[in-house]
Amino acid sequence: MNERRGLAGSASYGDDLLDLDGDRLREECGVFGIFGHPDAAAITALGLHALQHRGQEAAGIVSFDGARFHTERALGLVGDTFSDADTVARLQGNRAIGHVRYSTTGETILRNVQPLFAELDGGGFAVAHNGNLTNGLTLRRQLVRDGAICQSTSDTEVILHLVARSRRPRFMDRFIDALHALEGAYSFVGLTNKKLIGARDPLGIRPLVLGDLDGCPILASETCALDIIGARFVRDVENGEIIVASEDGIESIKPFGVQPARPCIFEYIYFSRPDSIVHGRHVYDVRKRMGAELAMESPVDADVVVPVPDSGVPAALGFAQQIGIPYELGIIRNHYVGRTFIQPTQSVRALGVRLKHSANRSVVAGKRIVLIDDSIVRGTTSVKIVQMMREAGAKEVHFRISSPPITHPDYYGIDTPEREKLLAATHNLDQMRDYIGCDSLAFLSVDGIYRAMGEGARDPARPQFTDHCFTGDYPTPLADLDLQGPKQLSLLAEVG
Amino acid sequence: MNERRGLAGSASYGDDLLDLDGDRLREECGVFGIFGHPDAAAITALGLHALQHRGQEAAGIVSFDGARFHTERALGLVGDTFSDADTVARLQGNRAIGHVRYSTTGETILRNVQPLFAELDGGGFAVAHNGNLTNGLTLRRQLVRDGAICQSTSDTEVILHLVARSRRPRFMDRFIDALHALEGAYSFVGLTNKKLIGARDPLGIRPLVLGDLDGCPILASETCALDIIGARFVRDVENGEIIVASEDGIESIKPFGVQPARPCIFEYIYFSRPDSIVHGRHVYDVRKRMGAELAMESPVDADVVVPVPDSGVPAALGFAQQIGIPYELGIIRNHYVGRTFIQPTQSVRALGVRLKHSANRSVVAGKRIVLIDDSIVRGTTSVKIVQMMREAGAKEVHFRISSPPITHPDYYGIDTPEREKLLAATHNLDQMRDYIGCDSLAFLSVDGIYRAMGEGARDPARPQFTDHCFTGDYPTPLADLDLQGPKQLSLLAEVG
Amino acid sequence: MNERRGLAGSASYGDDLLDLDGDRLREECGVFGIFGHPDAAAITALGLHALQHRGQEAAGIVSFDGARFHTERALGLVGDTFSDADTVARLQGNRAIGHVRYSTTGETILRNVQPLFAELDGGGFAVAHNGNLTNGLTLRRQLVRDGAICQSTSDTEVILHLVARSRRPRFMDRFIDALHALEGAYSFVGLTNKKLIGARDPLGIRPLVLGDLDGCPILASETCALDIIGARFVRDVENGEIIVASEDGIESIKPFGVQPARPCIFEYIYFSRPDSIVHGRHVYDVRKRMGAELAMESPVDADVVVPVPDSGVPAALGFAQQIGIPYELGIIRNHYVGRTFIQPTQSVRALGVRLKHSANRSVVAGKRIVLIDDSIVRGTTSVKIVQMMREAGAKEVHFRISSPPITHPDYYGIDTPEREKLLAATHNLDQMRDYIGCDSLAFLSVDGIYRAMGEGARDPARPQFTDHCFTGDYPTPLADLDLQGPKQLSLLAEVG
Amino acid sequence: MNERRGLAGSASYGDDLLDLDGDRLREECGVFGIFGHPDAAAITALGLHALQHRGQEAAGIVSFDGARFHTERALGLVGDTFSDADTVARLQGNRAIGHVRYSTTGETILRNVQPLFAELDGGGFAVAHNGNLTNGLTLRRQLVRDGAICQSTSDTEVILHLVARSRRPRFMDRFIDALHALEGAYSFVGLTNKKLIGARDPLGIRPLVLGDLDGCPILASETCALDIIGARFVRDVENGEIIVASEDGIESIKPFGVQPARPCIFEYIYFSRPDSIVHGRHVYDVRKRMGAELAMESPVDADVVVPVPDSGVPAALGFAQQIGIPYELGIIRNHYVGRTFIQPTQSVRALGVRLKHSANRSVVAGKRIVLIDDSIVRGTTSVKIVQMMREAGAKEVHFRISSPPITHPDYYGIDTPEREKLLAATHNLDQMRDYIGCDSLAFLSVDGIYRAMGEGARDPARPQFTDHCFTGDYPTPLADLDLQGPKQLSLLAEVG
Repeated sequence: MNERRGLAGSASYGDDLLDLDGDRLREECGVFGIFGHPDAAAITALGLHALQHRGQEAAGIVSFDGARFHTERALGLVGDTFSDADTVARLQGNRAIGHVRYSTTGETILRNVQPLFAELDGGGFAVAHNGNLTNGLTLRRQLVRDGAICQSTSDTEVILHLVARSRRPRFMDRFIDALHALEGAYSFVGLTNKKLIGARDPLGIRPLVLGDLDGCPILASETCALDIIGARFVRDVENGEIIVASEDGIESIKPFGVQPARPCIFEYIYFSRPDSIVHGRHVYDVRKRMGAELAMESPVDADVVVPVPDSGVPAALGFAQQIGIPYELGIIRNHYVGRTFIQPTQSVRALGVRLKHSANRSVVAGKRIVLIDDSIVRGTTSVKIVQMMREAGAKEVHFRISSPPITHPDYYGIDTPEREKLLAATHNLDQMRDYIGCDSLAFLSVDGIYRAMGEGARDPARPQFTDHCFTGDYPTPLADLDLQGPKQLSLLAEVG
Repeated sequence: MNERRGLAGSASYGDDLLDLDGDRLREECGVFGIFGHPDAAAITALGLHALQHRGQEAAGIVSFDGARFHTERALGLVGDTFSDADTVARLQGNRAIGHVRYSTTGETILRNVQPLFAELDGGGFAVAHNGNLTNGLTLRRQLVRDGAICQSTSDTEVILHLVARSRRPRFMDRFIDALHALEGAYSFVGLTNKKLIGARDPLGIRPLVLGDLDGCPILASETCALDIIGARFVRDVENGEIIVASEDGIESIKPFGVQPARPCIFEYIYFSRPDSIVHGRHVYDVRKRMGAELAMESPVDADVVVPVPDSGVPAALGFAQQIGIPYELGIIRNHYVGRTFIQPTQSVRALGVRLKHSANRSVVAGKRIVLIDDSIVRGTTSVKIVQMMREAGAKEVHFRISSPPITHPDYYGIDTPEREKLLAATHNLDQMRDYIGCDSLAFLSVDGIYRAMGEGARDPARPQFTDHCFTGDYPTPLADLDLQGPKQLSLLAEVG
Repeated sequence: MNERRGLAGSASYGDDLLDLDGDRLREECGVFGIFGHPDAAAITALGLHALQHRGQEAAGIVSFDGARFHTERALGLVGDTFSDADTVARLQGNRAIGHVRYSTTGETILRNVQPLFAELDGGGFAVAHNGNLTNGLTLRRQLVRDGAICQSTSDTEVILHLVARSRRPRFMDRFIDALHALEGAYSFVGLTNKKLIGARDPLGIRPLVLGDLDGCPILASETCALDIIGARFVRDVENGEIIVASEDGIESIKPFGVQPARPCIFEYIYFSRPDSIVHGRHVYDVRKRMGAELAMESPVDADVVVPVPDSGVPAALGFAQQIGIPYELGIIRNHYVGRTFIQPTQSVRALGVRLKHSANRSVVAGKRIVLIDDSIVRGTTSVKIVQMMREAGAKEVHFRISSPPITHPDYYGIDTPEREKLLAATHNLDQMRDYIGCDSLAFLSVDGIYRAMGEGARDPARPQFTDHCFTGDYPTPLADLDLQGPKQLSLLAEVG
Repeated sequence: MNERRGLAGSASYGDDLLDLDGDRLREECGVFGIFGHPDAAAITALGLHALQHRGQEAAGIVSFDGARFHTERALGLVGDTFSDADTVARLQGNRAIGHVRYSTTGETILRNVQPLFAELDGGGFAVAHNGNLTNGLTLRRQLVRDGAICQSTSDTEVILHLVARSRRPRFMDRFIDALHALEGAYSFVGLTNKKLIGARDPLGIRPLVLGDLDGCPILASETCALDIIGARFVRDVENGEIIVASEDGIESIKPFGVQPARPCIFEYIYFSRPDSIVHGRHVYDVRKRMGAELAMESPVDADVVVPVPDSGVPAALGFAQQIGIPYELGIIRNHYVGRTFIQPTQSVRALGVRLKHSANRSVVAGKRIVLIDDSIVRGTTSVKIVQMMREAGAKEVHFRISSPPITHPDYYGIDTPEREKLLAATHNLDQMRDYIGCDSLAFLSVDGIYRAMGEGARDPARPQFTDHCFTGDYPTPLADLDLQGPKQLSLLAEVG
């Protein structure tokens, strides 16, 4: 056992001992905007609440009342801040945009919380961003060299500066000027004193949908944010499209011409909520089909199918239905785990405490189980979950993953560890199986996941999805990767 | 539609609009104690965390270090208070007891948070209580008449006063004296400067188990509190039994003689965690069998089986497996709902916002669904969930409840509304179906639930379980029900 | 220098380096009550604010609205809690009592914060207390032996238990029963569902005055609490007198017969506010006369008279006017010192930082100064203040104290250190002068202070004041001093 | 009475009823910096604490550790934030600057709290500012027009942008470039990765001194910030001088040539601490001389001299000593008034409650009193204080003000009301006397105040001090006064 663990070093201890969710990928953001509704801020708060799974570290809303912009931003969940009626009431006006944020540790400071706002020459401009620029730091350095003062470490501030410095007279031209300088993934919502603006990058990597509530246009990262308020889904914003909502109606601008979209496949695998519809596909259905494809590709003779809660549930249902083995809750989740928890003493830690999940012995004991999860990142929690199953008496543990091995990091808004920390980047399948300690291990193939998406297979010439985490095929240049020199900009993070 | 709602009055509005959990029964407490372990307080905190589902409003621990008692108590979750290493470190000593509490609104004040402590003539005594005395108020009035000063509105304080006032010289005799005065349901853990004590009422209405961690005795409400720390399950504490753990070992006292137990059936239906084993039965298995019995009693021709999350999940699995219809997640739960949330304006409220749950349209639309829940109390949320299914396009909604109709309130530690608020107390089955708005409605029968428990049928002469909520057959006298006069004692609640 | 300091050990370092107020005596409490005013709670909050100098660690108010008692209590200043309009609004009713509290470290926990309340057989009773019982612990042990459960470590709870256990039928008789058991100093205000009650101990050690606002009776520790609300001063409550205000008017009861009063002389020296009138004497005038008597007894040839702010100010004015030397502010107080402050690193500490006071060099440099303070307790801060004067360039520093040497601890509600920590208990005048490091040192004589009070001299047979701190002549028995055995009751302090 | 009040309208009600300090002038800031000390941040915290009287609404410190800048900023007092050892420990490095801030209501938001920081092309730059630019808004508009994004509403940010945009290669040249664009009053402290910088405007309106602690240079607004840490006063920074401290020692730069200084006279009247030395004058002595000059100019036959605490105290001592009437504390200050306080109900408000001050009846009753204050702004509190003296029984109230009438607002960092709210701008002396309700009223003359400063008289051609509040003679142009158009920049204030 120790030997197997030895492959990856410190897998057998550490804080993640306590948390099966500690080895998940994290999305950086969700955005929402509405134009023309008397309860704009309250509706935005509800929309952000529906998008909470996209970012739990901070939330913010900017509204405009025809004369002034108003902002409320805070660390914490949407409900922590916007359950206060006074807070919502201060956000006057019939148009608003909002943002929920996930961020890597240490950078979550209030001045990075979005939407960001700047008073430009022609009036105020607020913007919120889901995604990540692959040339954000490069642009920032040029701006600072030209005398710009950056007050956040957020990519989003770059677009503010680019707009502020454009010499074009009309706002939308300045905004388009700015977009042309950007590389990477972005879904923006913006608010000026006249317009609500949405924009997706040329490949449409991150999602953005257009909705309608009683004639008021809505922009949101996912359809579940429309459902919570009973709004109508109109259509996806297209890749490379700018949507401008104003009192004159809705305008569509395509400054990049027309090209095929290449949305991020992880929205289907993990990020989007199961009840959302992304580019015409029900996420829940796609996940079940991933499980079914997995069952066809890598069947196993077993007694029960057990999902790793909660992300493995739909794939486990699809697997179980396809293969005809009963689906059972072999792992119970404790819903009362907050953002901090008991730091047990070293001797207590040695007990192997599991605060967040426990084995359901009546399902597991004496059984051959198929454990279904959606992905493996570092693999550290997979080790623990298999161990937990064995301690509960499982006779065999077959591990099935409803997506391909993650071999490459992301630079488009998903928080992935460095390449050398990705289990599949440094281990082959047998090594992974040994490291995790399961009896068998299989991943869904790349073509299998394309089939689950309803595509025949991956088109290597023009891949239908952004899938570099599995393939290494990055869809845009990665300018910032080559930057050298002191990363002084990160000092900003400490300027409270 | 309005007409149907008219039957029960205010069902169509109110704060519970927002929360499908607003119509659940609530358990009042969970208890834990350990004797002789160097990390007694940390282990107690972990045990309470595993029991968090039994009470989320407050938590407390008392430890004893051989010379002094130490206490930490606070409103909120276990992790809110006991994630702080300093707090745990202050709880010195190798023995500790702890408590998690649910309480009706307005009464959750710090001085009611358990364990309660009193300095008696022979030394300190701390006690924590799960259950409810049916003569608690009666006893309290006698005590006040005799010059006692009560500082809480908690039943638990009554036992402290009874012990303090007993004239017997030995502590255990005084404790037994006190127990003889009590009527109702209780599972106590207590701590003196010598002993860890556990006690169950003569019928064993509320649960209590005995465990062992490296030779240290543990008392806990459920086995899941043993599992989290890797402790061994020894046996259930028996009805009417007192367990005394001291440096001399473990002693069992049975002051009430031997009589058949009559544990509360709701521990199986709703309260206990699915991975707990209660009186030898796996809770998860029992709940699945309730679903299976229900499928046999009240089958239905449908396309999908949909659980009301999370409490309806095991019964829905059992129902689906029994009847052979696919189990699907037709309702998605938002895990980020905190203890407060957005108070939408009236106009937003009219949108029918659902903060905590949403329909999964891809499962529901165009389908005939069987909705499985574990119980109906007032019925208000059942109305909303059926409505949500219909709005998501369900063709038919068949509602199946995996326990019998609740017609009588509880007085033994479960927070039930007054009788006239219980839907099944005032409506027959057809009326309930019409009120809820489903296409068909069925409850599991009383005998069905006994079968799911592994009993042939209910023995009316000597019922095997406390089941008055379904039958009106209360297992003890209800002295407090007849009390008249000013309820001055509740004023204490305001003495913060 | 080291040698001198050596006498008292650690005088030269420690936290008190930072705070000239660290060596003051502390009063334990102030009380207030009003009957019949529609704004009873708001007026009580204002009265307590005026009494804030008597206790800054906690504040509480109990009101009665004809049916229910309401309580708000919290650690901190009156304004911290009662600046909140909602808090005051919850204290419904036209009668209220309140309390401000000082307490020794570690015992200030919420359950000790007064007023305390108990639901007695005949109805609720709230009580707040200024003073200290010299047999409080003795009584408490008897009560516990008789089965009472104490929930605080406060003396005040003893009276609640005594009243609760009295077998007399009428409330006032039970209250008088209880008073007869008490020894020591007490000024109580109490509230029942019929009456506002005030009571002073037989010697009238702690103050209590009767006032009137628009026909509503008021009880307060000092007249400044009447002035803040524009209430009329009626008279002092007499020693051994009970005042009962009800809808039938005001009644005076003297259960102890008539005997000479013996009020605490420290109310004049230090505790009462300078604008209060205590037993017919203006406190400011008395303090100035103490300074003038001191000038006559111990004159000195100097350039300026400098008060130790703020307590030495009136005596310094009296001294300066009497002796004809200019009064100057040689020490400046920083008013922005909060309840916590910078913990400088050890190296910064070595700088001799003075956060709360600084020398006013323009007054001190090159001058012979007379420094006036009201008392010396441990002497630790006197050392520092003299040192500060010398560092600012004082040519000579003559220290004059406007009260006699403190040689005995108090047990009547003043927080004094143990006898061996009192500088004057272990040092003669020359030793004290050497320890403090001043050029000359003098205290006001005992007869001098009696003259300042307007008495010819102290009557040793029947001293006009409680003055044991100077004389060792304690006015009551000190039962608790002889108590032995484990002080288990202090464990209660930890039961948060 | 009503008639007199009628002259100024709303004098008789409002929140200022409760606070004699409500009618004070407010200074905007204090600054501190140190170079080369291992405890730089702790020392800066102490220095800021000594400067707390210059600003109580926020405090901040930036340190530099040779590689990274660190910042801690917060609303509240210095001690609220920097009493936490962890906070100070995070401010690593041997150089630091700090700031305390006062600000008009509504603008005190965290992003305005200084020091401000920017990452410029050549490295980080932090700056803190005492004073006010009279062309700050004009500059800001130009900057925004040129594409700058301002993230605060603070003047201080303007200097950051000017430095960032200067095209000069060396930092100091860019800084001097920026200074040349500024008009108004400023005393800056700045920190780069090489240097600690101090700068005063060409007239030296706001103060700044140079000190030395064990060879480490210090910059501070006042000498009292040197005294608290035992640092040596070196000299005042001169008007128009830049001080640069680096590892190469201290350099003085005078980019504006040499011209006569014209420091603000209000530093002597009100702002500086009495123990500070400003431009070679002891503030306490100057204030006493103002009182003495006032006594000579406007003597009065009276029984006692009473200061309005605390600002009138030194002038009252000077007045009393000069005229030979006893100085007495006729007004007592309650030191426990926090930042919020009881909002009494309307009926309680009618009682004329005085939370912060009370009359000392024993001094006032039956006496002819001379009341001494340092200035009159709106006059609203003067009305109340005279009324309070009369209600306490004063026979006559003669009001003497130790500075001339304030007839013009300030634009250099002192918060004054608009001109029409200044009592002396709209009333002649008789009208002021009638409005205030005193028996006589006199102000110190302009020449009298120059005499108190040790100048023969004011030189109208080249006034020795900035004294426009009394004379209307503003020392610099007031560009921003003429700005028109939407003040959009203030919207920023809401972007929390």
